[in-house]
Amino acid sequence: MQFHPVYINAVLEPEYSFVSTHLKPYFVDALTAHAKTVRRLEHPEVKLRQAEIASLEQALIDLHKVAAPSYDPEIPDLFYALNRRLERLLGPAPVSFLRLGLSRNDLDMTVYRMRARDLLLELATSLSVLQRALLVQAETHVHTVLIAYTHHQPGQPTSLAHYLLAVAFGLGRTAKKLLGVYETLNECPMGAAALAGSSPPLDRAFTATCLGFAAPLANTYDAVASSDWQVEIVGLAQQASLLLSRFVHDLLLWSGEGSFRLVDGLTQGSLIMPQKRNPVALEHARSRFSRVLGTAQAVLLSSHNIPFGDQLDSSPDVQSTLQLLFGQLGEALSLLSASLEHGSFDTEQLAQRARATDTTATELANELVASGGLNFQDAHRLSAELAAALHASARPWQSLTPADLTALGGPLLPAETLARAVSPEAFVARRSGLGGPSPGALEVQITQLYSDLESYKTWATKTRETLDHTTVTLRKVVK
Amino acid sequence: MQFHPVYINAVLEPEYSFVSTHLKPYFVDALTAHAKTVRRLEHPEVKLRQAEIASLEQALIDLHKVAAPSYDPEIPDLFYALNRRLERLLGPAPVSFLRLGLSRNDLDMTVYRMRARDLLLELATSLSVLQRALLVQAETHVHTVLIAYTHHQPGQPTSLAHYLLAVAFGLGRTAKKLLGVYETLNECPMGAAALAGSSPPLDRAFTATCLGFAAPLANTYDAVASSDWQVEIVGLAQQASLLLSRFVHDLLLWSGEGSFRLVDGLTQGSLIMPQKRNPVALEHARSRFSRVLGTAQAVLLSSHNIPFGDQLDSSPDVQSTLQLLFGQLGEALSLLSASLEHGSFDTEQLAQRARATDTTATELANELVASGGLNFQDAHRLSAELAAALHASARPWQSLTPADLTALGGPLLPAETLARAVSPEAFVARRSGLGGPSPGALEVQITQLYSDLESYKTWATKTRETLDHTTVTLRKVVK
Amino acid sequence: MQFHPVYINAVLEPEYSFVSTHLKPYFVDALTAHAKTVRRLEHPEVKLRQAEIASLEQALIDLHKVAAPSYDPEIPDLFYALNRRLERLLGPAPVSFLRLGLSRNDLDMTVYRMRARDLLLELATSLSVLQRALLVQAETHVHTVLIAYTHHQPGQPTSLAHYLLAVAFGLGRTAKKLLGVYETLNECPMGAAALAGSSPPLDRAFTATCLGFAAPLANTYDAVASSDWQVEIVGLAQQASLLLSRFVHDLLLWSGEGSFRLVDGLTQGSLIMPQKRNPVALEHARSRFSRVLGTAQAVLLSSHNIPFGDQLDSSPDVQSTLQLLFGQLGEALSLLSASLEHGSFDTEQLAQRARATDTTATELANELVASGGLNFQDAHRLSAELAAALHASARPWQSLTPADLTALGGPLLPAETLARAVSPEAFVARRSGLGGPSPGALEVQITQLYSDLESYKTWATKTRETLDHTTVTLRKVVK
Amino acid sequence: MQFHPVYINAVLEPEYSFVSTHLKPYFVDALTAHAKTVRRLEHPEVKLRQAEIASLEQALIDLHKVAAPSYDPEIPDLFYALNRRLERLLGPAPVSFLRLGLSRNDLDMTVYRMRARDLLLELATSLSVLQRALLVQAETHVHTVLIAYTHHQPGQPTSLAHYLLAVAFGLGRTAKKLLGVYETLNECPMGAAALAGSSPPLDRAFTATCLGFAAPLANTYDAVASSDWQVEIVGLAQQASLLLSRFVHDLLLWSGEGSFRLVDGLTQGSLIMPQKRNPVALEHARSRFSRVLGTAQAVLLSSHNIPFGDQLDSSPDVQSTLQLLFGQLGEALSLLSASLEHGSFDTEQLAQRARATDTTATELANELVASGGLNFQDAHRLSAELAAALHASARPWQSLTPADLTALGGPLLPAETLARAVSPEAFVARRSGLGGPSPGALEVQITQLYSDLESYKTWATKTRETLDHTTVTLRKVVK
Repeated sequence: MQFHPVYINAVLEPEYSFVSTHLKPYFVDALTAHAKTVRRLEHPEVKLRQAEIASLEQALIDLHKVAAPSYDPEIPDLFYALNRRLERLLGPAPVSFLRLGLSRNDLDMTVYRMRARDLLLELATSLSVLQRALLVQAETHVHTVLIAYTHHQPGQPTSLAHYLLAVAFGLGRTAKKLLGVYETLNECPMGAAALAGSSPPLDRAFTATCLGFAAPLANTYDAVASSDWQVEIVGLAQQASLLLSRFVHDLLLWSGEGSFRLVDGLTQGSLIMPQKRNPVALEHARSRFSRVLGTAQAVLLSSHNIPFGDQLDSSPDVQSTLQLLFGQLGEALSLLSASLEHGSFDTEQLAQRARATDTTATELANELVASGGLNFQDAHRLSAELAAALHASARPWQSLTPADLTALGGPLLPAETLARAVSPEAFVARRSGLGGPSPGALEVQITQLYSDLESYKTWATKTRETLDHTTVTLRKVVK
Repeated sequence: MQFHPVYINAVLEPEYSFVSTHLKPYFVDALTAHAKTVRRLEHPEVKLRQAEIASLEQALIDLHKVAAPSYDPEIPDLFYALNRRLERLLGPAPVSFLRLGLSRNDLDMTVYRMRARDLLLELATSLSVLQRALLVQAETHVHTVLIAYTHHQPGQPTSLAHYLLAVAFGLGRTAKKLLGVYETLNECPMGAAALAGSSPPLDRAFTATCLGFAAPLANTYDAVASSDWQVEIVGLAQQASLLLSRFVHDLLLWSGEGSFRLVDGLTQGSLIMPQKRNPVALEHARSRFSRVLGTAQAVLLSSHNIPFGDQLDSSPDVQSTLQLLFGQLGEALSLLSASLEHGSFDTEQLAQRARATDTTATELANELVASGGLNFQDAHRLSAELAAALHASARPWQSLTPADLTALGGPLLPAETLARAVSPEAFVARRSGLGGPSPGALEVQITQLYSDLESYKTWATKTRETLDHTTVTLRKVVK
Repeated sequence: MQFHPVYINAVLEPEYSFVSTHLKPYFVDALTAHAKTVRRLEHPEVKLRQAEIASLEQALIDLHKVAAPSYDPEIPDLFYALNRRLERLLGPAPVSFLRLGLSRNDLDMTVYRMRARDLLLELATSLSVLQRALLVQAETHVHTVLIAYTHHQPGQPTSLAHYLLAVAFGLGRTAKKLLGVYETLNECPMGAAALAGSSPPLDRAFTATCLGFAAPLANTYDAVASSDWQVEIVGLAQQASLLLSRFVHDLLLWSGEGSFRLVDGLTQGSLIMPQKRNPVALEHARSRFSRVLGTAQAVLLSSHNIPFGDQLDSSPDVQSTLQLLFGQLGEALSLLSASLEHGSFDTEQLAQRARATDTTATELANELVASGGLNFQDAHRLSAELAAALHASARPWQSLTPADLTALGGPLLPAETLARAVSPEAFVARRSGLGGPSPGALEVQITQLYSDLESYKTWATKTRETLDHTTVTLRKVVK
Repeated sequence: MQFHPVYINAVLEPEYSFVSTHLKPYFVDALTAHAKTVRRLEHPEVKLRQAEIASLEQALIDLHKVAAPSYDPEIPDLFYALNRRLERLLGPAPVSFLRLGLSRNDLDMTVYRMRARDLLLELATSLSVLQRALLVQAETHVHTVLIAYTHHQPGQPTSLAHYLLAVAFGLGRTAKKLLGVYETLNECPMGAAALAGSSPPLDRAFTATCLGFAAPLANTYDAVASSDWQVEIVGLAQQASLLLSRFVHDLLLWSGEGSFRLVDGLTQGSLIMPQKRNPVALEHARSRFSRVLGTAQAVLLSSHNIPFGDQLDSSPDVQSTLQLLFGQLGEALSLLSASLEHGSFDTEQLAQRARATDTTATELANELVASGGLNFQDAHRLSAELAAALHASARPWQSLTPADLTALGGPLLPAETLARAVSPEAFVARRSGLGGPSPGALEVQITQLYSDLESYKTWATKTRETLDHTTVTLRKVVK
């Protein structure tokens, strides 16, 4: 076959490079499993040639030890290149058994899912690392008061841990979605051949087991045509990126204010502005999360308005885009995890800022009801009037005195009661209900999230080990 | 409050119109549940005013009977409008209990989730209807041979049912994702107040139960800030739209060839081309699926690079966009379901097309091995040579004779064996392995999909009934 | 024609509602221009029936005075509804002339372009208003020092005007792109009929002129099939939204710090946090810019992977999406313009912040070269050491004394020289080169931008007037 | 500086690799121009050190002859690496002149624009090649009748050339947009320093000229912060990709039907289906156009909701994404151009298909008016009845006889008149008005498009030559 130079340059050569770099072991494993399945066929010729097929299996397994053949412009892809190598080694007859009920359609789709499975397990680890970093910081800052902003304005006192755990709950839900994605993609296309299966009754369940899949896909056309597993990966990446883009926004804001500080190795200076310490690790995380959203679209749109049965748009073209997506997301997660692990919050600055606001005005109103005998309506009005009065005379909210209350016709409250009512720390401590920021309430949340994380890590480890064990078994010397 | 005319015109008035049209019952129910929760507080003033709070509950429940107040430019939103109506009815004191531990943040987020829950259950129904239409067509066409195209070229014979079931398996997986989305959004923000919860110990689990939620959200900041439930809805919509855009592509292609025909009521004619019968229902479905993908981006990007604690971008602005998304997707699904229910495939034309191709060449190779004693390699070469020879003399593949084989040095096969080897019907019948297109293999698939559909519909019905029952209970006359 | 209820509900009725609300005058004008063109044909029957065609023209013009017929489920669209009304009025014969060389394809595309032309001119006005608001604020703040942040860290002193003009230059370039978009869409599809033109030699240039288009499109297939004018509108909207999303980011940041303050009517309070003043107009602008990006995708994807000759995806489905896009963008621009017109910067706070940073360290280095006789390398090192020394002893950068210099082995500089070197105001004043922030340099920029704005407004006004004049002429009583 | 390993692996090393591979010559040229500008300063130290600065210039120019230094984990980027090499060569003093009024901000932005300028000129060439291929095919097929489909149904006869020219008009408009993009990006940021310009009065116009820019940017903050030139590139890429995705859709459809055939070197076979000839070059073009749309989003979203003054998101992160975008688009254009240059249309098959439809029914109606004396209304009704009658008796439309007309009460037309009325060729020939498919009308269009193409190529060539000349001048040995 003489391919056109444009086709070679734009498609075949870069594709070959991608596939032989990233997908070769999967191709070899999938072909090995196929050869083993062929050898079990109840078929006269197969019965006759057991030894030949066994030698084919062994030759396949041995391919793991050698590099992929270098690119040859007359060969369309890695499958053909491996095939040719095997034929040179064994002669054409044994190798022809590989073609029995095999198409590049089911082979490719199987390989893509195997690859995605590995990338997904790596992602599970990255998500665990970030979750752990969040929980460690949260444990450190159970008592750190933070003025939570809403609408870009000081809102209410809470604790830094409460904020970090909110992010962690979102991340936990996102990470958990990965299990569902894994389940979707962990079904095996092998045996679907071009799309209609094959007439020799290949034992598809056996092939699936050899490759560590939960089961063969239940419809062979679906097996080669479906791209929903890619769309699910995209959904997961979108979810992680959007949540974390918001977290990074806040970390950068706090870096600008000086309340969050990265370790030196994650910052960069300026040529012209010697005093600068730019939180570049976070900026690069942001830029990666943004790009994940675009790369996600590249994956999605490859399945838009194309024929159902058309596999090409989910071929190496899209697989390299999926790989880019995993790469951008993985880098962003690493940068963010490192920023949390090697960054610190300035608790004193946060406390000062908290004391400088009048965000406890609501709480004073509650106190006026509880201790001052007012009804809710009057209490809120008085509290708002006090805030306005202090603001007018440029006094900080924390300086409120019993005299200020009585001056506006309010009840006489003991100074300590008043001090507690306007204290951000007391504000937080009182919010001890389910999900609140009081230390006790936070402990419940931290315990739950650590326990969830433990289960998650256990799942990832077990899944990884099972896959590795399957691979070792598959690659054992053929008897 | 005097709002700026630009703000009224661009934001407040359209928002009020959207909220009062689509969200009022949810607001009233959420406020009712809150009032009931407040009434159960261990709090001296609450103990004292049980009757007043009960009257507030009743007044809230009665709001279901009247329309939302018409828009008043001095009132920022529906919450304030309802509040004012209640104050006029009951006086300010009882109404002030509503504010105890309530913020528009937790209220809004609760309402949005309640609304999304209902829209999601409607979507579950639309997906079920489409799935049923697919299965009914599949049952009708178990024996209809279809030449499956790959790479826009005739590929292999399969059956129409096999194709339709492939789509159905993809749709089944997508539909099942909805359960996970439902689970994510079915947790209750109420009691989170602005973000830090409240000091009076509101029983959040009770409120959640009143409103049919599985549980309160475990972190109050997360409760008001998280938007991952929206991202999950988007992921589901993307998955459905991409899969079905591919199916619609093929239905339109078949409409152009005449092998799929819509009922008249789903087509439109042309002013200038009187002979036309345009399959417009499908075209409008395509256009809606395309737009779903864009509207999905509008929802996603509203959460991109904004502060974590900022609720506004997930306020009515985004809720109306979510509603648009559900609307576009729902319409597309209806149009596609109707097209399947009221469309028919021309089985005779499909069979003729099948017989006109040489897509069974592979099968002949298999037969040459099985009955002709060739090895695979020689068999494939001979089959390819035969295809080329017939093509060169413009003879149809089905006209292959034993003489053609022997002329090219092949074995002598009986005419019937040869006829069966090149017959598309026999090709399909032989593919009886797991997931294949043979009638027996398809029956297994159809049975599984109907069973899955039944479970799905049961889940949706039960969930709907439970929610309805909860609502009835909540709105019962207050004792 | 009996349409299927699903098709009526999902497509025909909402489409009719959209078209009759927003597009009727354009339909009537386009039909009028067509009738006038038909009347000029050298064609025996046309010659014979001049009076009838004239009466048709007049009847068309009179349609402007009456509302669109209400929806009738047996009629597919507004064109048929108008046609029927005309037939009832004039009998079928005169109305049949309308069909001569007319298709809904060219008619629709013409109407869509006329509508887009008007929306584009409205957008030009909105952009001008915002540009003016920017320039007015810039003029006010030529002397207001602003510490420009880079990488979320204090970078260098500049002036607020310099920042605002940077945004204005970007906006100016974006606004200017609109002229190119206008040029693309201002070509006329009429006479293209279904796609191949018509055999009666309609004078397409005449029709184009009647409707205010610059010329007829030069290929009739292109005339009905191309959607690049929509893609150009999208490009313009993307450009404006991204630029302004960055500007809004900063305005919100400054609102949070208190250095930018909106007028009350553009803020909202909080139910639970009485002290709050949320800059909601800006938040709603941000949310609209985000949604513009998604709606842009909805427009784009409607043209993705569909047949070239297929008009339906750019039919009312897409036109209503384009309208949504213009609406979201227009609202965002109004909110932002109002925020600038009715917002104020706290110049004193900005000045204080400027004096609190050591962002003039570079300038000191330059001074050490100029007046202190150091080479650049040594100057920069000394400046950095001074910054570090003052930071270590918690002294503000502005407190630098000649003694500090000599203590670190630096040259003895006069106190005034030193004071000028570290002054943010002097830093800005010295940057008087092309494009810099010194008042003189800014004046050049302001003058240029006002002049550009004037030309832009002149173009928009003239274009609007010419179109209006064309419409008046077209609708004149038929002689 | 000791960077964190995560930051090195995720950011610094890949960035260095990208920058040193793709951007080094631009960095060196920009620094050379800066050095030349510094040497012209009216500044005592500069006056004194003319020779040293000249040696710096020469050392910079010589850097073109050596490879970029290999990556060193202690060096943040290529600028520092080059700087260090120069210092080793010349000592620190001369090199320190480089820092005079230079920041990586203006340097980076200048380099990015220079790079984009070159990529844009390459794109201009790719677009010209495709346009030429379209025009050559159009010239070949002026007389090839094509049944144009609308709504996926046979619509009307036109010519293949008419279709191809429609695409060419769209492509011509798109290509022309490139000139505007070039104009936007061809302004020079140099001299903007960090953002506020510099106090030494660098002659920014001189630097701009040295680097082939039309002018310096008129506001230095804008110069380093604006990303609208990237958004414009994206808009251009979106426009090209959407238009061509529709053209590829049709080419693939025609490949499936056999009316368009690629040369062998652009197709691939199937392992399991030996008869296949897959039009893979077109499929890979489609997949690339789809991905361009996603990569476009990655570029856009990098500027979404980030600070105005923040350059990092348009740093190498985004530049490598822009490069990916250009690459995907360039490959898609090459594949499509090659497909047109080495593909052929089966004119006989197209003609047969044309004769098999009744798409000339409209024309018969016109003839019934012209020669048969009917009014339009009756003529159309009769024509539709005839189409229905022939369809009912399974007769082809071309077999219509005078007797068929009279049988339905129509006028007696001569057989030749009738034959001409139903002939697709005659249908096309009659459409000779402006923009129509008649050979005469097409000639006008072809002439115009060739002339436009010529101007376009002239612009690209001249621009390229001017830039090359500028570069040669800049790199001349320093006197």
